[in-house]
Amino acid sequence: MDWFLQHEVGEGKLLVGESLGSKDKGTMAAEAPGPRPLVLGLLLCALSAPVSQGGKLLLIPVDGSHWLSMLGVVKQLHQRGHEVVVIASEASVYIKGAAFYTLKRYPVPFRREDVEATFTSLGRGVFENVPLLRRVIKTYKKVKEDSALLLSACSHLLHNKELMASLAESSFDAVLTDPFLPCGPIVALYLALPAVFFLHALPCSLDFQGTQCPNPPSYVPRALSLNSDHMTFLQRVKNMLIFLSESFLCNVVYSPYEPLASEVLQKDVTVQELMGSASIWLLKGDFVKDYSRPIMPSMVFVGGINCASKNPLSKEFEAYVNASGEHGIVVFSLGSMVSDIPEKKAMEIADALGKIPQTVLWRYTGTPPPNLSKNTILVKWLPQNDLLGHPKARAFITHSGSHGIYEGICNGVPMVMLPLFGDQMDNAKRMETRGAGVTLNVLEMTSADLANALKAVINDKSYKENIMHLSRLHKDRPIEPLDLAVFWVEFVMRHKGAPHLRPAAHDLTWYQYHSLDVIGFLLAVVLGVVFITYKCCAFGCRKCFGKKGRVKKPHKSKAH
Amino acid sequence: MDWFLQHEVGEGKLLVGESLGSKDKGTMAAEAPGPRPLVLGLLLCALSAPVSQGGKLLLIPVDGSHWLSMLGVVKQLHQRGHEVVVIASEASVYIKGAAFYTLKRYPVPFRREDVEATFTSLGRGVFENVPLLRRVIKTYKKVKEDSALLLSACSHLLHNKELMASLAESSFDAVLTDPFLPCGPIVALYLALPAVFFLHALPCSLDFQGTQCPNPPSYVPRALSLNSDHMTFLQRVKNMLIFLSESFLCNVVYSPYEPLASEVLQKDVTVQELMGSASIWLLKGDFVKDYSRPIMPSMVFVGGINCASKNPLSKEFEAYVNASGEHGIVVFSLGSMVSDIPEKKAMEIADALGKIPQTVLWRYTGTPPPNLSKNTILVKWLPQNDLLGHPKARAFITHSGSHGIYEGICNGVPMVMLPLFGDQMDNAKRMETRGAGVTLNVLEMTSADLANALKAVINDKSYKENIMHLSRLHKDRPIEPLDLAVFWVEFVMRHKGAPHLRPAAHDLTWYQYHSLDVIGFLLAVVLGVVFITYKCCAFGCRKCFGKKGRVKKPHKSKAH
Repeated sequence: MDWFLQHEVGEGKLLVGESLGSKDKGTMAAEAPGPRPLVLGLLLCALSAPVSQGGKLLLIPVDGSHWLSMLGVVKQLHQRGHEVVVIASEASVYIKGAAFYTLKRYPVPFRREDVEATFTSLGRGVFENVPLLRRVIKTYKKVKEDSALLLSACSHLLHNKELMASLAESSFDAVLTDPFLPCGPIVALYLALPAVFFLHALPCSLDFQGTQCPNPPSYVPRALSLNSDHMTFLQRVKNMLIFLSESFLCNVVYSPYEPLASEVLQKDVTVQELMGSASIWLLKGDFVKDYSRPIMPSMVFVGGINCASKNPLSKEFEAYVNASGEHGIVVFSLGSMVSDIPEKKAMEIADALGKIPQTVLWRYTGTPPPNLSKNTILVKWLPQNDLLGHPKARAFITHSGSHGIYEGICNGVPMVMLPLFGDQMDNAKRMETRGAGVTLNVLEMTSADLANALKAVINDKSYKENIMHLSRLHKDRPIEPLDLAVFWVEFVMRHKGAPHLRPAAHDLTWYQYHSLDVIGFLLAVVLGVVFITYKCCAFGCRKCFGKKGRVKKPHKSKAH
Repeated sequence: MDWFLQHEVGEGKLLVGESLGSKDKGTMAAEAPGPRPLVLGLLLCALSAPVSQGGKLLLIPVDGSHWLSMLGVVKQLHQRGHEVVVIASEASVYIKGAAFYTLKRYPVPFRREDVEATFTSLGRGVFENVPLLRRVIKTYKKVKEDSALLLSACSHLLHNKELMASLAESSFDAVLTDPFLPCGPIVALYLALPAVFFLHALPCSLDFQGTQCPNPPSYVPRALSLNSDHMTFLQRVKNMLIFLSESFLCNVVYSPYEPLASEVLQKDVTVQELMGSASIWLLKGDFVKDYSRPIMPSMVFVGGINCASKNPLSKEFEAYVNASGEHGIVVFSLGSMVSDIPEKKAMEIADALGKIPQTVLWRYTGTPPPNLSKNTILVKWLPQNDLLGHPKARAFITHSGSHGIYEGICNGVPMVMLPLFGDQMDNAKRMETRGAGVTLNVLEMTSADLANALKAVINDKSYKENIMHLSRLHKDRPIEPLDLAVFWVEFVMRHKGAPHLRPAAHDLTWYQYHSLDVIGFLLAVVLGVVFITYKCCAFGCRKCFGKKGRVKKPHKSKAH
């Protein structure tokens, strides 16, 4: 086996698993007089982990909400004794220094303000009510501009000889990265380090390509399709059309990384190869939010990973919640990227919020709408998960990013979803089909629509029952997602990868994978056999009947 | 969503997960001052489990080694406070009464001796050196006879009105069964109970059909193919031919269950539907022994589940091991079904065993071979896992059943494999490609072959290194397989199934699954558009050029 011959036994700094033979575990288990605690083996493993003798992890994040959702894992890895080095450009907006990791910055030819402007314009663009064709052209232009900026940052990292040399000398055990931008995977390949990918999903099924995971378009809804897993014939046609067009759609963003990677790695590399380089994929999903579908052994599902970290409410928020009385509170946030919306829309929303008896805590940094009701409190930031976890939380108005959706699920709070861009429409669709919330089109909705949706999810008991059912299923798991993520990062550090989980499909061409050469060969054999049999029969017939026929004829003529 | 609308929130007897909201977990986690223990959430869950308020589980096993490998889970479920009722025929050989479950027997029109005879003849048949064609015919006849016996047992269970009525009244929470024979799935459907399947694998890819798991023949080796995951073109052709013939091969054993199930369930049922009825598949495999391939969310891998239960050696075996000196011991067993082999073969083996300095502990119930050496001790039974776990274990001679292979892996003992039937050839192939052992053909091998193989795996360090590497990978897991199996059985009991893990593929026809209708429709549209465009162009050309042509000609003729 390739993986076995190529990879030596991991003798890294972190031999946690090895310090505890199964013999010890087994003996203790056998000696336990009562019921064997469900976690005995794992507990022993965790307690014996040499927390102070940590490894070295290189982290290459993607700025924005992607980075924020990684923080829990980084904190936990630091607490378990690992040294985490984070690489970010000097223009990063969200990636800042912290006590639990070492931040190394590299210069780029643009400013932090430029990146901030791309985030702001992303949020603002959503609320511009322009015709479809203009919107498509605008989005295309924006994606092209933004990805050029990000590509430039990646190029400046890869061409920063001093930094790359210092990384090469640092003898890291592994790279943790978000492959939404393929810069991390290129660095991992350059440093010949095993990589762990941490993400929600990739556009254009790049995650399926990278893991070699089958992705039947007949029941696995494509991103942005708004399909569920049960599709009508026309929905399946739409799904297939998206599937067929995916490779063209993503070329704008991803194909420029191919020449860059090929130059740095000094060999031809495709985006699929970059994506296929991960040892483990930590995917922020599960099958309570997402539909059941084929997966691969290298995929680890850690949906709800951010939900565990809860803190008591500050005095300010505690006061708001206590003052809400029997009606309770509604939590309203459109995510880290959108905190300011056009005044007209803000007034419509403020009007709707005034129509419900609940106290609404709204994360909003813009000018307060003049018609704001007394029950609505604007805040620049809110402890979303802590508020949703309060028994008085009655509803959650969200842009349905996967982070927020999981906070809604794990706290069991029904949702009014205002999806803005990306996978948010699909997330909203999933929750809606499960009866756990109502989706509204933020551009087209009226004040009455929002008020009615809020009243529905608060007063119609089915929404609460459905979200509580999802919550129970989601939280009933053998191991917490944060622990699972940390385990697999450490596994890759200990064993220098996870080559036994890599499918042999990576070593096949597309036609070999689909057995087209074998099918062609078997068809040729069958046709050959049929042809030869036919020829033989025909020849036989000619020999037998042909002669007889010829023999008969002269006989006949002779007889006549 | 179907699963959501059809299934009410589980309000069964076992609301373990529900007794502990994430809030409590989260708060404790946040308050922990040092590194958060990897298993805190799980530990809290396990400690709060109401062990004394167990549920009721119906267990329908398959006699033989299949049953023996289930015992660990049954014991654990009993210890966790569940009442387990085991259903077995009066003629069962291995299924006997025990303190940790209630055994209910039902009468069948054959005796225990008849079943014993089928087991014995299975083992004996292996050593008969007959020509291939005769062997195939003999095997076919034996399979047909044996499966008729087993079908008859199933029919007598399903038609035992008294027993079935008492089962219906017992209000079980779930059924745990081995679907190798589809009797358990039929009972589960009859009682409208969610089912957990516990197995190694099913023949003819029935497990893939039941889970709707993709199974590309280009890199997933078919059972009995002896292929690895990296195949040559001709091996892929062989794999494809086995894949194409699978549905015919299994008809002998499985198709008779269709009319039986249809009669009992009063509706038409196929074998695939019976296999597709499981909520969770507990599969005794992992990706250290098996090759990486697509899986489904309902599949839980518990390979090595039997390895944890270890006991200290009895005085008898302790004495043998201590007396072995520096050379250590070799453990030799051909599994629970084969303990007696023809004298000639036994003498060959005894001769080979005499050529190594190790003490050989051989499980053998036949007449001792006259040439038995002093270093070889025959025993009627041996504590295989405990002996393999002893530091003096140098090699393991095994028939390479999955149970034994995992005991070899988890104890890190290199193997000489003598596969006899079923999946044993494939198991041996997997270990051989990983450099962890040597495979011999038990019929064709000579005494020298066996002696050389033993010397190789004992003296060539690479075998020990390779099996130790596999052992480390296998045992480095976030949760022990026994705990995982128990968790998922309890999950199904708590939630009355796991419908969220059921893929929508179950609701598609085969041509819908492969999108053949969509592809046909799109092709028709494309061809239609091409045809209409062509016709329009042709019409246009005729109108334009046709007229011009006709106009020009007269001009020309006029000019002339």
